[in-house]
Amino acid sequence: MALAMDRDELAEFLDEAFPQVKGDFAIEALDEDELVVRLKVEERHLRPGGTVSGPNMFALADVGIYIAILARIGRVALAVTTNASMDFMRKPAAGADLIAKIRVLKLGRVLAVGDALIYSEGDDRPVARASMTYSIPPQAMG
Amino acid sequence: MALAMDRDELAEFLDEAFPQVKGDFAIEALDEDELVVRLKVEERHLRPGGTVSGPNMFALADVGIYIAILARIGRVALAVTTNASMDFMRKPAAGADLIAKIRVLKLGRVLAVGDALIYSEGDDRPVARASMTYSIPPQAMG
Amino acid sequence: MALAMDRDELAEFLDEAFPQVKGDFAIEALDEDELVVRLKVEERHLRPGGTVSGPNMFALADVGIYIAILARIGRVALAVTTNASMDFMRKPAAGADLIAKIRVLKLGRVLAVGDALIYSEGDDRPVARASMTYSIPPQAMG
Amino acid sequence: MALAMDRDELAEFLDEAFPQVKGDFAIEALDEDELVVRLKVEERHLRPGGTVSGPNMFALADVGIYIAILARIGRVALAVTTNASMDFMRKPAAGADLIAKIRVLKLGRVLAVGDALIYSEGDDRPVARASMTYSIPPQAMG
Repeated sequence: MALAMDRDELAEFLDEAFPQVKGDFAIEALDEDELVVRLKVEERHLRPGGTVSGPNMFALADVGIYIAILARIGRVALAVTTNASMDFMRKPAAGADLIAKIRVLKLGRVLAVGDALIYSEGDDRPVARASMTYSIPPQAMG
Repeated sequence: MALAMDRDELAEFLDEAFPQVKGDFAIEALDEDELVVRLKVEERHLRPGGTVSGPNMFALADVGIYIAILARIGRVALAVTTNASMDFMRKPAAGADLIAKIRVLKLGRVLAVGDALIYSEGDDRPVARASMTYSIPPQAMG
Repeated sequence: MALAMDRDELAEFLDEAFPQVKGDFAIEALDEDELVVRLKVEERHLRPGGTVSGPNMFALADVGIYIAILARIGRVALAVTTNASMDFMRKPAAGADLIAKIRVLKLGRVLAVGDALIYSEGDDRPVARASMTYSIPPQAMG
Repeated sequence: MALAMDRDELAEFLDEAFPQVKGDFAIEALDEDELVVRLKVEERHLRPGGTVSGPNMFALADVGIYIAILARIGRVALAVTTNASMDFMRKPAAGADLIAKIRVLKLGRVLAVGDALIYSEGDDRPVARASMTYSIPPQAMG
């Protein structure tokens, strides 16, 4: 699917749309097939034991799929998550950033769907899988 | 299902097992059919616009269903979330705590399943639905 | 939520909308809180081993939640399933019908959400849990 | 992940393990990264309107991910589906077979997870997405 924003525009949008997590995420790569987003893991993202908590993996998938959709439909800060499904498959590695590889699977008139595989940096076995649906407000599609 | 902990013991376990969110959650009610957990909403739980963010609703469901299971099998801090499915159905009310009503649906040898409906306090229309699966370590079931 | 059809009207709608499964399902009860639907289990619904197959439990949940929504918005045969999440928790009892207890959780302008617990008749431990989302065509809501 | 069965062995296993759907499915390709399974669409798989029904797409994903796991762990006819999540994104094309492209994401001691994208043959936009979890009996892993 054609892109409406390049990587720098998307990074700027990310900071504006999610000021509460500014600096947590970085856009590693963006093309028509895939968006790669990094969670820069800090102490505050961890559970006791040193691995990234479920809510922070949820946030990575949710923010990542959301901005992957927005990269295609443009600056519309109003789409809302309506469904999320996640499988937590392995314990993330301690001390490693998380890398989410994201695909947009559907971009419809009222619904958009994407999925993500999340990895600990440096390990090619996914730690989590997520799929999310967003409801797109009527004005968003022009 | 019979309970292994009463409400006070469960509240104590909650603070021990999740020190990073100490004070965020309160146990409102616990019996054999249902656990009711409150998220005491603070500024840090909100998105721009003033409503509770998705990751915080995820955390409420995850912590709530987890401790509902532990209330039945006893103090085993090792069960891990393996699957989560959520529907976000309405925008939470600004300025209201969230109340999760939780049921344990299965308590098996290796897997436990529960679900939750989440409400803004004072409104009987659910804002979100969650179902979660936990893998129980072999020693946990005695 | 107020009902637009009573039990007999809903039974008639079920036969019209799903002729390919005519006779498989029966409406046991319908009120503003709950719809109860029976799958009359026949040889063709079974896996080797004699228990109802996953696709037939999926069909029970999907048809049941769909008609629970239609009971509230009236005869609109066009809503489509957009998301389904199921937990299969116990093996259904051999030789028993399945009973689905269904709630409508959200009835919005474009999306409706419901969930179901499925039981083997005569056993109060659920064999499966399902939640489903339907997209409602614009004309449906008047 | 290394394969324990080649394509012909897997096709033979499919017919033995699912005699009730014999002839419905064909294995198009199998390697360490992906399994491709075809649903040979017949009149009985269709809804009124001529598109493949939800339960048949569920069956394609469930059978496909199941045999993709078995291709890696060998002939163990006992793994059971514990969780399924699906997004139905587009109406399947009338008169076209469905093609499922399946990945195994986790192969653990007690749980295995896979996902699938389902296409109408000849169209590269997915009609559905599925992820499924299977519980593996203790003896299966040798």
